[in-house]
Amino acid sequence: MKSFHPPVRTLMGPGPSDVNPRILEALSRPTIGHLDPAFIQMMDETKLLLQQAFKTDNELTMPVSAPGSAGMETVFTNLLERGDKVIICQNGVFGGRMKENVERCGAEAIMVEDAWGSTIDIDKAEQALTDTPDAKAIAFVHAETSTGVRSDVQALCGLAAKYDCLSIVDAVTSLGGIELEVDEWGIDAIYSGTQKCLSCVPGLSPVSFSERAARVIRERKSKVQSWFLDLNLVMGYWGSDAKRSYHHTAPVNSLYALHESLLILQEEGLQNAWNRHALNHEALLAGLETLGLKFIVDKEFRLPQLNAVSFPDSIDDATVRSALLNDYNLEIGAGLGALAGSVWRIGLMGFASNKSNVLLCVSVLGNVLAAQGMPVDVSKAVAAVGAVYAA
Amino acid sequence: MKSFHPPVRTLMGPGPSDVNPRILEALSRPTIGHLDPAFIQMMDETKLLLQQAFKTDNELTMPVSAPGSAGMETVFTNLLERGDKVIICQNGVFGGRMKENVERCGAEAIMVEDAWGSTIDIDKAEQALTDTPDAKAIAFVHAETSTGVRSDVQALCGLAAKYDCLSIVDAVTSLGGIELEVDEWGIDAIYSGTQKCLSCVPGLSPVSFSERAARVIRERKSKVQSWFLDLNLVMGYWGSDAKRSYHHTAPVNSLYALHESLLILQEEGLQNAWNRHALNHEALLAGLETLGLKFIVDKEFRLPQLNAVSFPDSIDDATVRSALLNDYNLEIGAGLGALAGSVWRIGLMGFASNKSNVLLCVSVLGNVLAAQGMPVDVSKAVAAVGAVYAA
Repeated sequence: MKSFHPPVRTLMGPGPSDVNPRILEALSRPTIGHLDPAFIQMMDETKLLLQQAFKTDNELTMPVSAPGSAGMETVFTNLLERGDKVIICQNGVFGGRMKENVERCGAEAIMVEDAWGSTIDIDKAEQALTDTPDAKAIAFVHAETSTGVRSDVQALCGLAAKYDCLSIVDAVTSLGGIELEVDEWGIDAIYSGTQKCLSCVPGLSPVSFSERAARVIRERKSKVQSWFLDLNLVMGYWGSDAKRSYHHTAPVNSLYALHESLLILQEEGLQNAWNRHALNHEALLAGLETLGLKFIVDKEFRLPQLNAVSFPDSIDDATVRSALLNDYNLEIGAGLGALAGSVWRIGLMGFASNKSNVLLCVSVLGNVLAAQGMPVDVSKAVAAVGAVYAA
Repeated sequence: MKSFHPPVRTLMGPGPSDVNPRILEALSRPTIGHLDPAFIQMMDETKLLLQQAFKTDNELTMPVSAPGSAGMETVFTNLLERGDKVIICQNGVFGGRMKENVERCGAEAIMVEDAWGSTIDIDKAEQALTDTPDAKAIAFVHAETSTGVRSDVQALCGLAAKYDCLSIVDAVTSLGGIELEVDEWGIDAIYSGTQKCLSCVPGLSPVSFSERAARVIRERKSKVQSWFLDLNLVMGYWGSDAKRSYHHTAPVNSLYALHESLLILQEEGLQNAWNRHALNHEALLAGLETLGLKFIVDKEFRLPQLNAVSFPDSIDDATVRSALLNDYNLEIGAGLGALAGSVWRIGLMGFASNKSNVLLCVSVLGNVLAAQGMPVDVSKAVAAVGAVYAA
């Protein structure tokens, strides 16, 4: 057996996205102790950078030492106790995962379902809140990675405030890619991932909790069922007024990488990063539509960082994705769940959201589709991309 | 705010240990997708390398995507259901953490306590098994990181077999450092960490389950309370006959690092690695005893990779550790829990277990203790180290 040297891919799937070389270099810096004063200082900076990225003053803001799924579990397992009721608005895979989490906490999930590819219906959500006056929280996904749909977080948080329950937001794919205002929108609990629009390596999950949510956690009647994710304990290590006491061994090098990725975001500026994602999406859209592919999400609710497109029945999904990967080292995503086999998910996330990748994707996909017998005009598609950038 | 450039330390605490530069380089290789065929192949190799390191044929062998504490939780949360009884032999911090885990699963922890610094009393463990015929498992720590004590896993697993219950072993600090024979000793469930004797970065937890334990997990009556750690789901991604379906996004780069560290262990050979840890321990022991420090653990049960020593009352714990860290970039560990303030824990783990580190530690610690007014003969201590290596 030999050392593993991965192929050098361009990652335009649903994540992980291409990692900025600056971040890979940061990742490989010498490991130091997780209680080293130098490391503690870096943790403080990371908290501050995360607060800026989330646009929040929340004291309880930190990265969970595990991937986004563990961030989701951190939120539910800390906020819920047995018998609690949570309204979940589902319009894709990740709402379903929320349901699993809620039920495994011994709580009740009240589902409000919308079609995959549609945004969350605000009226249906309000009806559920009216019907369930004792709901503890309403939970939903900001950027559904399985469908490419954005939900109206501001409106949904407004409902949470109106009906006096907590708002829980999945921001795994939204943080750094589209507007997200934790304090202004009144989000109570939010979790994200590092491997999407932060363009960091996978393995960490930034979370943030409002003071109201933090109080719910501090005043629980029962212990959090997970020791590893119990924020009442974790805060002894991450809290600013804490003794920095040992809880678990932090993933030191991954945190170097997160610090660097947040610094890059700060240098660019949040608004600039959002604008860049929007622009590259417009260019990709122009190119792919010219190739004859259809976006499955209505224009108003499309995510710039996750583009779900359908393709003609004559095209074989797996053949195309294999050709992209094997011949061009280009990864795009397959459909997930109800959309498996019928859509591709093309990511333009973080560092990967750039002009070169848009042109690469349009031209390579055009060539592969042409080889599959689809009548496409690649030069026209490339020109359409160029026109967006020239405008 | 600027990029974080950590000081270059020598890590001789309780972990993380010094990471081999080969592993840091592996960590920084380009990120690829977690469903990329090239990555799946590397996962298969990692499973095989882990089986070799654990000395097991267990099919259910893989790294959990989070630190050792999450590995512990994976074991308990998957094996236990509400109302189960587990005997826990505690002689340090980590037995106490096991109790927390068991109780948060709604199960009952029956504690068998031994003094911190003592090994686990086999007779007391057997008495507990006799007194609790319906115990589902007996759990204990192989290498107690808080005290530097080794327990007799083979004898304890023999008891588990005799009384027909599962054996659960914490091998966070033992894997790669001292003899560990998962199949030969009949271990049913085991978890470890990457940041100790594997000298990899912190953040992953290798686990392995016997077929008997795997069956217990497959045949549970209730769902595992953690979605993220539910092995019935995780195996859809890591299992050899699985469809490699998406569960969570694997920490891709950390897994490159684990693969490299296991490869380094394979190249050296397990027995050679154990011998190296034993030899460097003997040399450190000779040096520290010559300086006048006392090992708190009886010779028979000392861990070569974690050396707990007490120091005279006249010596100020924090002053010495700060001097080592600030003046020499040398990290050693403070006492933990009941031993806080009264012992140091000096690690010689994995890559950090080498002659240079032993000499560095003895000479630097000698100098610092001399500066604190302790009558030490540094040259004699250094000579004692040399004599062990010359023998």
